[in-house]
Amino acid sequence: MALMTREEYIESLRKMNLKVYLFGELVENPVDHPIIRPSMNSVAMTYELAQQEEYKDLMTTKSHLTGEVINRFCHIHQSTEDLIKKIKMQRLLGQKTASCFQRCVGMDAFNAIYSTTFEMDKEYGTNYHERFVNYLKFIQENDYTVDGAMTDPKGDRGLSPSQQEDPDLYLRITEVREDGIVVRGAKAHQTGAVNSHEHLIMPTIALKEEDKDYAVSFAVPSDAEGVIMIYGRQSCDTRKLEEGADIDLGNAQFGGHEALVIFNDVFVPNDRVFMCQEAKYAGMLVERFAGYHRQSYACKTGVGDVLIGAAALAADYNGANKASHIKDKLIEMTHLNETLWACAVACSAEGSKTASGNYLIDLLLANVCKQNVTRFPYEISRLAEDIAGGLMVTMPSEKDFKDPEIGKYVEKYLVGKTGTSTENRMRVLRLIENITLGTAAVGYRTESMHGAGSPQAQRIMIARQGNLESKKEMARKIAQLDLSKDN
Amino acid sequence: MALMTREEYIESLRKMNLKVYLFGELVENPVDHPIIRPSMNSVAMTYELAQQEEYKDLMTTKSHLTGEVINRFCHIHQSTEDLIKKIKMQRLLGQKTASCFQRCVGMDAFNAIYSTTFEMDKEYGTNYHERFVNYLKFIQENDYTVDGAMTDPKGDRGLSPSQQEDPDLYLRITEVREDGIVVRGAKAHQTGAVNSHEHLIMPTIALKEEDKDYAVSFAVPSDAEGVIMIYGRQSCDTRKLEEGADIDLGNAQFGGHEALVIFNDVFVPNDRVFMCQEAKYAGMLVERFAGYHRQSYACKTGVGDVLIGAAALAADYNGANKASHIKDKLIEMTHLNETLWACAVACSAEGSKTASGNYLIDLLLANVCKQNVTRFPYEISRLAEDIAGGLMVTMPSEKDFKDPEIGKYVEKYLVGKTGTSTENRMRVLRLIENITLGTAAVGYRTESMHGAGSPQAQRIMIARQGNLESKKEMARKIAQLDLSKDN
Amino acid sequence: MALMTREEYIESLRKMNLKVYLFGELVENPVDHPIIRPSMNSVAMTYELAQQEEYKDLMTTKSHLTGEVINRFCHIHQSTEDLIKKIKMQRLLGQKTASCFQRCVGMDAFNAIYSTTFEMDKEYGTNYHERFVNYLKFIQENDYTVDGAMTDPKGDRGLSPSQQEDPDLYLRITEVREDGIVVRGAKAHQTGAVNSHEHLIMPTIALKEEDKDYAVSFAVPSDAEGVIMIYGRQSCDTRKLEEGADIDLGNAQFGGHEALVIFNDVFVPNDRVFMCQEAKYAGMLVERFAGYHRQSYACKTGVGDVLIGAAALAADYNGANKASHIKDKLIEMTHLNETLWACAVACSAEGSKTASGNYLIDLLLANVCKQNVTRFPYEISRLAEDIAGGLMVTMPSEKDFKDPEIGKYVEKYLVGKTGTSTENRMRVLRLIENITLGTAAVGYRTESMHGAGSPQAQRIMIARQGNLESKKEMARKIAQLDLSKDN
Amino acid sequence: MALMTREEYIESLRKMNLKVYLFGELVENPVDHPIIRPSMNSVAMTYELAQQEEYKDLMTTKSHLTGEVINRFCHIHQSTEDLIKKIKMQRLLGQKTASCFQRCVGMDAFNAIYSTTFEMDKEYGTNYHERFVNYLKFIQENDYTVDGAMTDPKGDRGLSPSQQEDPDLYLRITEVREDGIVVRGAKAHQTGAVNSHEHLIMPTIALKEEDKDYAVSFAVPSDAEGVIMIYGRQSCDTRKLEEGADIDLGNAQFGGHEALVIFNDVFVPNDRVFMCQEAKYAGMLVERFAGYHRQSYACKTGVGDVLIGAAALAADYNGANKASHIKDKLIEMTHLNETLWACAVACSAEGSKTASGNYLIDLLLANVCKQNVTRFPYEISRLAEDIAGGLMVTMPSEKDFKDPEIGKYVEKYLVGKTGTSTENRMRVLRLIENITLGTAAVGYRTESMHGAGSPQAQRIMIARQGNLESKKEMARKIAQLDLSKDN
Repeated sequence: MALMTREEYIESLRKMNLKVYLFGELVENPVDHPIIRPSMNSVAMTYELAQQEEYKDLMTTKSHLTGEVINRFCHIHQSTEDLIKKIKMQRLLGQKTASCFQRCVGMDAFNAIYSTTFEMDKEYGTNYHERFVNYLKFIQENDYTVDGAMTDPKGDRGLSPSQQEDPDLYLRITEVREDGIVVRGAKAHQTGAVNSHEHLIMPTIALKEEDKDYAVSFAVPSDAEGVIMIYGRQSCDTRKLEEGADIDLGNAQFGGHEALVIFNDVFVPNDRVFMCQEAKYAGMLVERFAGYHRQSYACKTGVGDVLIGAAALAADYNGANKASHIKDKLIEMTHLNETLWACAVACSAEGSKTASGNYLIDLLLANVCKQNVTRFPYEISRLAEDIAGGLMVTMPSEKDFKDPEIGKYVEKYLVGKTGTSTENRMRVLRLIENITLGTAAVGYRTESMHGAGSPQAQRIMIARQGNLESKKEMARKIAQLDLSKDN
Repeated sequence: MALMTREEYIESLRKMNLKVYLFGELVENPVDHPIIRPSMNSVAMTYELAQQEEYKDLMTTKSHLTGEVINRFCHIHQSTEDLIKKIKMQRLLGQKTASCFQRCVGMDAFNAIYSTTFEMDKEYGTNYHERFVNYLKFIQENDYTVDGAMTDPKGDRGLSPSQQEDPDLYLRITEVREDGIVVRGAKAHQTGAVNSHEHLIMPTIALKEEDKDYAVSFAVPSDAEGVIMIYGRQSCDTRKLEEGADIDLGNAQFGGHEALVIFNDVFVPNDRVFMCQEAKYAGMLVERFAGYHRQSYACKTGVGDVLIGAAALAADYNGANKASHIKDKLIEMTHLNETLWACAVACSAEGSKTASGNYLIDLLLANVCKQNVTRFPYEISRLAEDIAGGLMVTMPSEKDFKDPEIGKYVEKYLVGKTGTSTENRMRVLRLIENITLGTAAVGYRTESMHGAGSPQAQRIMIARQGNLESKKEMARKIAQLDLSKDN
Repeated sequence: MALMTREEYIESLRKMNLKVYLFGELVENPVDHPIIRPSMNSVAMTYELAQQEEYKDLMTTKSHLTGEVINRFCHIHQSTEDLIKKIKMQRLLGQKTASCFQRCVGMDAFNAIYSTTFEMDKEYGTNYHERFVNYLKFIQENDYTVDGAMTDPKGDRGLSPSQQEDPDLYLRITEVREDGIVVRGAKAHQTGAVNSHEHLIMPTIALKEEDKDYAVSFAVPSDAEGVIMIYGRQSCDTRKLEEGADIDLGNAQFGGHEALVIFNDVFVPNDRVFMCQEAKYAGMLVERFAGYHRQSYACKTGVGDVLIGAAALAADYNGANKASHIKDKLIEMTHLNETLWACAVACSAEGSKTASGNYLIDLLLANVCKQNVTRFPYEISRLAEDIAGGLMVTMPSEKDFKDPEIGKYVEKYLVGKTGTSTENRMRVLRLIENITLGTAAVGYRTESMHGAGSPQAQRIMIARQGNLESKKEMARKIAQLDLSKDN
Repeated sequence: MALMTREEYIESLRKMNLKVYLFGELVENPVDHPIIRPSMNSVAMTYELAQQEEYKDLMTTKSHLTGEVINRFCHIHQSTEDLIKKIKMQRLLGQKTASCFQRCVGMDAFNAIYSTTFEMDKEYGTNYHERFVNYLKFIQENDYTVDGAMTDPKGDRGLSPSQQEDPDLYLRITEVREDGIVVRGAKAHQTGAVNSHEHLIMPTIALKEEDKDYAVSFAVPSDAEGVIMIYGRQSCDTRKLEEGADIDLGNAQFGGHEALVIFNDVFVPNDRVFMCQEAKYAGMLVERFAGYHRQSYACKTGVGDVLIGAAALAADYNGANKASHIKDKLIEMTHLNETLWACAVACSAEGSKTASGNYLIDLLLANVCKQNVTRFPYEISRLAEDIAGGLMVTMPSEKDFKDPEIGKYVEKYLVGKTGTSTENRMRVLRLIENITLGTAAVGYRTESMHGAGSPQAQRIMIARQGNLESKKEMARKIAQLDLSKDN
């Protein structure tokens, strides 16, 4: 059963006993909740496409652990070719969902923990890597979706974990027992948490020895005792609750979500613990996960493809598609989107083998990739809004359009190019609204900014990886400096 | 009664018999509708501040027609000083509402029609100017809010008004009677239409003789027979309907709106008709209204001030306010916002007197101003989202925060800098969300793009006003070209 | 003789005994030196235009001290109208010379010292203001060009003046005598130093009491005993020495220059000393001079006009002027250039009266203006290079073109649009090269970056003037924060 | 003798009988001419590094034709790995020369002609591919540098080749003989023409049947009868003629050049003709050469590395290297430079096999790469000028510095950070000047703009390769359009 179908995936979630809160209430049935379901549909697409012949090469691969066919989201990358297939899979899913499909965080966590535990064991003689390999086999066999969880709430940004007034503002070990550990804290902004079978936890920053209780990595089922999820509210989220909502949703089928996941003294048995107080390795784990995850923002080029297509359709419906400035804006959107793609390809093609045998992306280029992701989707959105026209935000609601009395006015006056459908035009404009202002804007804009680390985090890494000293040396040679003159 | 109070304004609207549709239903009482009311509050602020001593110099002035003290929104600009006070008033209101306060369209229409009718009369011997002056006295005396309405639905952008399949896609005269005219059509994107006492209509593009029935300018009360308004839906609009909504609104008091205003064979008596088939002058009226209205986007600097302040507060609550990159981003936001302001000041200071005696802004600089408005608010927003952090879009709802059971987790884990309030932090983040993604984003982003003409409209004007030939001549002199050599 | 003619100006310089070094040699006759002369021609234009009827309103005014007609460059601004005329004069001169005409530094120094000495005297009971007024009368009566000199060499940027290993790296008082002072040091980057009758010195940074010997302002004739000038070398400077050089110069008539001015124990009599150890006022003087001088970068819009015109001509000669992307690039260049202009107008229109009675620009907007000048000329240049085409940098020399044998090939193969002259095309391309890469690029690009303070200096001022606290307060009100909750 | 040494290369050129004109004179000895020599040194570096063990993997490879070790510049790419090694070689050479090393055009022409002749032969039964393979073996065996020549002068851009008033404005066949062809015309902007053993000619645009005489590809020795080269003049070129010039050159050893190459009825024997009137294939050849050559602009990242290093050194010498804004600007420069690199890597990694067996880069990504090259080097330059400070353009000349009398003042006053050498500081600033304004700016800025096609050429290709229709289809699915409603 290494590959679940879309339906099996949804049913598997239904069987779980998740504690999800939304608008102050415990959600009885997350699977069928109209606000949550679209985000689940996005994850389900990772199962659905894996069943389709034409996508098998991208969506599935052979496990290097078991030789079984597995979903690529559960895979440990064995080559730069694997790294490139990873991003092609992500772009494809962006195109199919125009949303965040959430399953990347697990994949990126697997690959980061895989190599880091190997190197930890080598230094400390621990057996974290073996534990993790066993855990991974379990995931691969069950084709699970896993929430790779890194970001702590962080409280006061000027203070380290142990300096915080409340020590729980970073997730920490409160007790080390013989059979396992007890943890307390929270992980914020957890993408797809509610649609995941498991949470796989990592520390959020490099740590010093005095913060060693924060150096912890482990896995628990999403419905483990003591785990609570509070669903994040998104722009326009409640449109999905409106009766008969369809056109106004822009994207009626798909979405994404984040949740605040709280760990109230959760017990984790030893075989699911992958780091326990090894402060020195927290930094490596963070850097590698961040690196993989910055590569993963390749997915935004898939959403960008949909947005470019939607803008082109809007121009068609407006009857403005032949204007040279419109064509030029579509070229610019494409250019920016492909620049992002190029960065994702490059950090993959220039990947290299770790000591554990899996492949790591090029860290400098992955950070450059993500840095551009913090900029270009905003400009692509701006250009889409330019092409769409003001109607996108002044348009009457779907209920007006469908109203027997005034619907005829909407139909009459919002028609575009001769011979086209007012409804289709409205649908296209609502899709652009969805991506630039609505639920999907959370993913396309703000998460592009902060996901996998805020812009400044990438700048620090670019400084660190940019090898300024070697560049100075090149300049010294060309300028023929005589350093003996600098005393 | 030249100056109404806030309350008088609201009561005056209550007395009107407006036909407003929202979500497919006729709104019984627009004044108290929770979605509409915040936008009315913004207009009300134009009345409220005019009563306050400290703002009288900006908010009020003397009518050049009657010598009475009037609200500046009803004023015909008598000097460049007036033009500068106009934008200072607009920035102030942007700061006080962080929204579109809607009353500018009327003021800009007054000033454009005032000078255009004067010049039309001079050519044709008509008496439109006198009619308009009388109408204006009526407005000034009653301190009315007026919807200056220009934009037609436009249908197929590749076709002229009379070429459209449906001739009503641009508003037109269907009958010229002895006592007045009958008009049919619609005006789209009408800012503040529902909060206005009157609609003051203008044509939307320069027209040729064959389109003369579209050359029409007139005024009707907002509740005139045959006028219907359909309220535009905005991002996050229904949050205002949520029970107890406060924090999640970001800006609980203020907002803006647009409506589609439909004219079903509306009769207009002659004394309210200010252009009737004078196709030649449609272009002048459009250009002047657009010019004034592009200046009016100075208001966005007021909203920008609030957004910059909110971003600075977010950094404070995050405990990140001392990071050099945060300080630099705040400087950049300020720099961009003040560049917009400089453009607004400049097109005002360089204004000039029209034949009718009122002052017109510098057209080139007003277009340059608006062109920058189509860019910088997007970048300011992006920087605000950068400073705010991802929590802005992943944060649990207000209901979660106030929930007796799980509220404590939200309180605990979303706390920021030591000693600060989680609620205050949430409020600030929701305000940033409101301006960058929510109801106010409609005004701060998309209307900045398309209001007063889309970017390409300004580029056409910049090309026309830029005097390229004189620049070529300067270059020819410096380069010492001998034109006789070009045969 | 309050207004000199062009010729009188040049003769007046010829009479001076300047010590100018260039390429390691003392220049015998700076006035006729082919490298220096074009920069002198630019200054001469400030005299020439003042004689022409059509420019008298901009170029001349009445002295508020004597009532005589004077060149505006010697004027103390009496109103915001004066401030606006100042920048209109500067744009005009930029258009006429496509260069730096150098005389602004004196004018800006006059106005800064005028108000600062007034306030110093008020605090200390000194009589600097009276001394300065007398000096200014002398300048006005003689219509002199004055090098307003601020920037010290600065040595190690991490150290204050008195901490430098060599105390002379900031210009300082070495002796205070009864009858005057003795100074030593240098001023770097002195625009127009060689074409000036006088040097008027100011300190370069705000100073503390321990650095009081660096708090000094005074005037000396340019040929005073102990003053040496070393001419700065510019990109392409020696083309002017080539025999018969004309086409290859791009701009054969005009240029600009900077020099390193050295003060070797120069004595200054008391009546020419305007600040002597009043460390507290150094900052005010710097801030005001910088403010005026940041406004002065309005001149670059004049150079921009020429460059836009040249790019348009290049497109004409290429036969590419109808391509939509070319037209759009010319619009963008115009838009950016006019945005700079708007900032200059705005900081002038919003100027205010100082205690001494003259008018100071709005400091925030002047800094915003200059900050944009550090960016837009670079983008305008880039677009000009885009339109010009590669020929601008691969074109054979003028000597090849004029060669009897191979000139015919250049003529034949470099021809552009049918019927146009190859020579004219070459001239236009060389003009663009001159402004973007050649001698004028020094003024249009690098000085736009660093003149009147480097970009970071403006950012610091924007932060200081941006009033972030009031913006926070606006945001607090809109978000309805309860500050009592932040303990 | 498949690999020449640096010296052998230079001697081989000395033996040629080149007709090179410079400043209106026939250059007797181009090899030792001080203006030409630095550009020859850059080409020589492609020979020198190929001899060094540490660079052999990048600089050399095995010929797929002969199995011999050859310089990579003579290679036909056999894999995507080859494509990636190509750009790594180019970045390395950019780092070693900070200039254009000129040999890429030949390599790119080889690969474009190789696959195009193969496909032509398949359609027409011609034997161009075999001829070309033989020619290539000759080049590989002799390790020659070849000028791949594409760009015609073009005359009036609005007219096709045969519509030009002068039919020679595009290079054309004037006679087809039994034993060969005769050609007339010119190739403009020929990079490295003077340093090449051979010219390899291609048409410059897609051609229609009526322009078939312009569809021509062939090779001739650089000193063939009837070939004349006129050297292009560069910014600051004559500094290299100044006696003792060293510091002021910035980069004393290396440079680049372009020339206008004229073909006066040159005869080409059949075995060197690779296209003769096959108009249909002109477009394919142009597109492929342009594609490869747009990838080649990877070299600019090497120059960028030197410029970043130089800027960092300038900050060090200024004592400003610890300022946060300086560090941030260096990060931004690195980020932009690496974004360019990522695009070059991506179009290589995503390359694919042609029918002839060699590898072609991904055309979309190569155009995206080059489009970014038309932007980022300008911004990197701007930031370098920001960090460098104004001294870069106001600094006295080397002769002043070395002058026994005034040199001491230069030494004293231009010193930077305590303990550093004034001369070293000057050298670094002159290097930055060289790349941003001087001879190397031609390569780093203007050629980045226009080389391998001007920006608009890339935009046209991006539009063509961007597959907008498939993006629209994605959007239609997400928005659930019912196309039957668009009649």
